[in-house]
Amino acid sequence: MNFKPRNPNFATEVHDSFSRQHAMTLIGAEVIRVEPGEVDIALPYRSDLTQQDGFIHAGIIATVADSACGYAAFTLMPPNSNVLAVEFKLNLLRPAKGSRFVAAASVLKPGRTLTVVRTDVFAEERNGELIATMVGTMMCLPRT
Amino acid sequence: MNFKPRNPNFATEVHDSFSRQHAMTLIGAEVIRVEPGEVDIALPYRSDLTQQDGFIHAGIIATVADSACGYAAFTLMPPNSNVLAVEFKLNLLRPAKGSRFVAAASVLKPGRTLTVVRTDVFAEERNGELIATMVGTMMCLPRT
Amino acid sequence: MNFKPRNPNFATEVHDSFSRQHAMTLIGAEVIRVEPGEVDIALPYRSDLTQQDGFIHAGIIATVADSACGYAAFTLMPPNSNVLAVEFKLNLLRPAKGSRFVAAASVLKPGRTLTVVRTDVFAEERNGELIATMVGTMMCLPRT
Amino acid sequence: MNFKPRNPNFATEVHDSFSRQHAMTLIGAEVIRVEPGEVDIALPYRSDLTQQDGFIHAGIIATVADSACGYAAFTLMPPNSNVLAVEFKLNLLRPAKGSRFVAAASVLKPGRTLTVVRTDVFAEERNGELIATMVGTMMCLPRT
Repeated sequence: MNFKPRNPNFATEVHDSFSRQHAMTLIGAEVIRVEPGEVDIALPYRSDLTQQDGFIHAGIIATVADSACGYAAFTLMPPNSNVLAVEFKLNLLRPAKGSRFVAAASVLKPGRTLTVVRTDVFAEERNGELIATMVGTMMCLPRT
Repeated sequence: MNFKPRNPNFATEVHDSFSRQHAMTLIGAEVIRVEPGEVDIALPYRSDLTQQDGFIHAGIIATVADSACGYAAFTLMPPNSNVLAVEFKLNLLRPAKGSRFVAAASVLKPGRTLTVVRTDVFAEERNGELIATMVGTMMCLPRT
Repeated sequence: MNFKPRNPNFATEVHDSFSRQHAMTLIGAEVIRVEPGEVDIALPYRSDLTQQDGFIHAGIIATVADSACGYAAFTLMPPNSNVLAVEFKLNLLRPAKGSRFVAAASVLKPGRTLTVVRTDVFAEERNGELIATMVGTMMCLPRT
Repeated sequence: MNFKPRNPNFATEVHDSFSRQHAMTLIGAEVIRVEPGEVDIALPYRSDLTQQDGFIHAGIIATVADSACGYAAFTLMPPNSNVLAVEFKLNLLRPAKGSRFVAAASVLKPGRTLTVVRTDVFAEERNGELIATMVGTMMCLPRT
């Protein structure tokens, strides 16, 4: 899809907001792509992010996928917006094995109040093995 | 509901497995209650777990809720089982403000292969303000 | 929970709106309880509502659960509101066997724009065997 | 994706099973495409399928999307299988306005026990306006 951003500074604002998400710093995630309606976040494997079998914890996968959903929605919001997650579902398709993971988010339907986003999480690289998929609803709020 | 565990060591095994979830150590979560079909996990507030507004990141809430779902299901599995998340949805009801959060999981339907679990996440204490709710599907696998 | 309705005619409006949901007439569903934040819908078994094994189709269960979610949310909305579903997830716990089903919806979190509702679907009667559970997000719109 | 069916009669079996889903007959849905891992179901608009505003009821959309998910999964199952829905989430993106709707299901991850499927629901025709999207988990059971 071809979305027109309403905020010319959307990319800078995504990076600024992301840098204030301390949870992203804690887990070592980084934004690697920002386009109108699309955001990719990369997460290198670390053993302190794992569940009992040594795979990345499903909740940590959800964390990067949720941020990717939120920032993909945020790219299409007007200036002075804030974004919050309303809900998301994550389906885990394969164990999160690999040296690196990429959560690739695409807006399905932008809206004034609610934006629906799909995020696919791949092992190693975008369009690598699909390990999880999320659909989430993101809400636009005025920044306070 | 009144469930009969098939593994007499279920509580010990929950604690053992939890201690191998390094993601739980990283975020500072701890198991505070283990009963047949029910597990509570507590998460103290830390500023390194936050999103852009200083609230706990929705993905971190999902991480403790997912572990609570998984271990609640695990309490009812036979010996030598392993548990994996198939899917979960998290609805965020209020901003995750507070000094501490409790994810309280209860099995809705145990099964040989699949167990469905609901986890409510409260601020401060069990049955405090409800900030999020998850329903997830957990899968029993033989331990390898 | 103890909710105060903002629309004194909430019960009448639920019944009026429900009578305009022709899909409810088609499947034979009826509203059997309307309280602030809570609505029950009953669905008698009919063989023309089934899937390939003779159980009620999961989508038909979703249909009554979604209407129950929507009207439970609607009871708490101000006058001249309309309600639309944003999203719902249904977990199917047991085959929908029985002569009658009751979808019992309770609001988890009312909001000006979004209301989150849980609906449990029971066989035979409220608090009978739990066959499915839904959590959904309902949106308040001004009536046009 | 390019899936190899394990049941050479998958297409015939989809049609046979679908014809036993009486709920599909009731609402007037029909299977219009069956490929390995992909099934499309069409639903013409009918005023007896609507909610209070005259749009197709979200639950009826869920009903066709769920059947599409189930049969897409079923195309990849071995002979003598049966398919049941474990869970699905539906996000409603736009009002279900139109003369006809197409639910197009694609398997994301086939599995021995569980298969995850995505169904997009379009107005008028495949790849028309996207009105809803579902991700569901389908379970393979031996036929009894």
